Amino acid sequence: MEVYFDNAATSPIRNEVIETMVEVMSSTYGNPSSTHSFGRSAKTYIETARKEIAKLLHADAQEIIFTSGGTESDNMIIQCAVKDLGVQTLISSPIEHHAIIHALDSISSEEVTVKFVNILPDGSVDLEHLEQLLSEDAQKKLVSLMHVNNEIGNILDLKSVGELCQKNNAYFHSDAVQGVGHYTFDLKSLPIDFLSAAAHKFHGPKGIGFTFVRRNSDLKPLIYGGAQERGLRAGTESVHNIVGMQKALALSYENLEDEREYIYTLKHYFLKQLKAVFPDLHCNGLSGMESGSTYTLVNVALPVVAEKAALLNFHLDLKGIACSKGSACQSGSTSGSHVLNCIQSEEIKKRPSLRFSFSIFNSKKEVDYVIEVLKEFSN
Amino acid sequence: MEVYFDNAATSPIRNEVIETMVEVMSSTYGNPSSTHSFGRSAKTYIETARKEIAKLLHADAQEIIFTSGGTESDNMIIQCAVKDLGVQTLISSPIEHHAIIHALDSISSEEVTVKFVNILPDGSVDLEHLEQLLSEDAQKKLVSLMHVNNEIGNILDLKSVGELCQKNNAYFHSDAVQGVGHYTFDLKSLPIDFLSAAAHKFHGPKGIGFTFVRRNSDLKPLIYGGAQERGLRAGTESVHNIVGMQKALALSYENLEDEREYIYTLKHYFLKQLKAVFPDLHCNGLSGMESGSTYTLVNVALPVVAEKAALLNFHLDLKGIACSKGSACQSGSTSGSHVLNCIQSEEIKKRPSLRFSFSIFNSKKEVDYVIEVLKEFSN
Repeated sequence: MEVYFDNAATSPIRNEVIETMVEVMSSTYGNPSSTHSFGRSAKTYIETARKEIAKLLHADAQEIIFTSGGTESDNMIIQCAVKDLGVQTLISSPIEHHAIIHALDSISSEEVTVKFVNILPDGSVDLEHLEQLLSEDAQKKLVSLMHVNNEIGNILDLKSVGELCQKNNAYFHSDAVQGVGHYTFDLKSLPIDFLSAAAHKFHGPKGIGFTFVRRNSDLKPLIYGGAQERGLRAGTESVHNIVGMQKALALSYENLEDEREYIYTLKHYFLKQLKAVFPDLHCNGLSGMESGSTYTLVNVALPVVAEKAALLNFHLDLKGIACSKGSACQSGSTSGSHVLNCIQSEEIKKRPSLRFSFSIFNSKKEVDYVIEVLKEFSN
Repeated sequence: MEVYFDNAATSPIRNEVIETMVEVMSSTYGNPSSTHSFGRSAKTYIETARKEIAKLLHADAQEIIFTSGGTESDNMIIQCAVKDLGVQTLISSPIEHHAIIHALDSISSEEVTVKFVNILPDGSVDLEHLEQLLSEDAQKKLVSLMHVNNEIGNILDLKSVGELCQKNNAYFHSDAVQGVGHYTFDLKSLPIDFLSAAAHKFHGPKGIGFTFVRRNSDLKPLIYGGAQERGLRAGTESVHNIVGMQKALALSYENLEDEREYIYTLKHYFLKQLKAVFPDLHCNGLSGMESGSTYTLVNVALPVVAEKAALLNFHLDLKGIACSKGSACQSGSTSGSHVLNCIQSEEIKKRPSLRFSFSIFNSKKEVDYVIEVLKEFSN
């Protein structure tokens, strides 16, 4: 049996999305920048997609800038905030995605300070510390904090953080790659300047995403060239990917309540069964709680003896089960999770951690199988 | 009748490419960075594509870095040469693609000098002037000159320029977006450090390309994050687009001789018929010559009276004909072609210029129709 419980890494494309993409690829091959009818057809596709995506998130169409994905979107904001907006202090957290962490590393200099807000043991952002960092000096600041943590699922209260930023006259960016398509957004009222999203996290194609850029920002491009994306992101648009992303997002929000309910039930069923096998189970972050964490994933530190722990991933893979390794960075290794390393106690760090992330395409039968395999393994 | 003579802007995707992409999207949804079987399948797809592309261009697989397209590839080299390689002088030409020109604009500063090599009236690069610029001072230099000019089709002798650069210890980059898939490359022997390509110019998907980065370069990423592309370009790979690009490139080179012959014949037939209608025809750059210009396009300044010229594009579009406006920048307008503006005489600038670019999917019947429409229009 093959079981894909790694939907937070990437999610299967919906068939309807593939069909839409094929239709576009087969029928519309003009360059959206061309003014002739072939070009206009392509342009219409992407502008319709932009409008639809904007509508779903309660943004203006001109605030949606298509990019090659979440990583580019994150880099665009981090790098351009410094380059174009006069930002001298970047405030982020140590449990951000590498797209943020490494973009910050690369830009940190004598002129540009990077500060990290404290993370509480449950994986939440210490908002008091954030407020302190925001008020420390008069430097122009950008706060970048992710919406839903990709490893432990903790959800940031975007409104509270946005208000704090506004109060302190700082820009606010959120990597919402794990949130868009799974939660609703009202970008009109949310006090946020920039937001990143990636289609492949909500059953869309890989290699396409968008950045929400609040109108009247003074941002310039990260990638220069043609006048695409209102001059904010050059390069011939990936028309089929853009249309696929729009289709995927539309379907996500169309079925949001039902699918959320389904996945939520699956996650709870999984956790309940897992606790029956491992009564001493530890859930990382807030991923085992009723609220504060996304319904799409759970990250668990399994009470498995050290000798066996090393074989766990190998064993699951052998049994056709896909989930994510989530071990804390131990004994100086750099391959572990910087997120778990930041929040786990020394005791829990000794255990193997795994992230299981679910989608509408998973079933209770699959949960039963995974539980069975884990049970056998632990015996 | 609908006629697409704008293949240099973008080209229709081959059906075989779409089929391959659908196969990948339907069957392989893992994240190439995941170590489980789903991830490994995806990884195998992209690494196989990388090897195949490298083989077609006589490069090493590790020298092929996937990007979102030609514009990103160009920006990556221009920006990172300054950021990571200590380049202080950038030498380019005034007839480069905007992806180069605007990337240069953005990076020009007190510390970074941008110099432009002279362009001869026929659109060729003045190699003597290039040599002079290369030897002017001891600053670390990057030369960026395109392989095939996208507007006038002039072909650069990459070997000669590469040798000049080597002699002067300068890096050499070429935007080969119009060349890859249409001409063969032996990157093992060619003295070049970096090269950009885009799939949608050779019947592949939009939104994917690659940068050839000669091994042992000290380049760092433009887009930071995960360890994809050997740490040189972060972000979840667009697996279906990568596989589509490989398929398109393989088909291009598989049928290169036959298709080149076919397109070449079409171009010459077009030119011959056009000259019959407009005996006073002027071909921009070398696009009307037997050699020195690509077989895929012709750029013509039509002897049409001024009152009619303004209606030409509108008329062609109305008749279902797609080609590219290529007028020189007149009376201070910024919407004209910087390429034609650079090379045309004042007399020729008064004429409307058009670029017609052909592919294997065009026919003599289409040429006849376009000639008929132009004939009617000029009467």
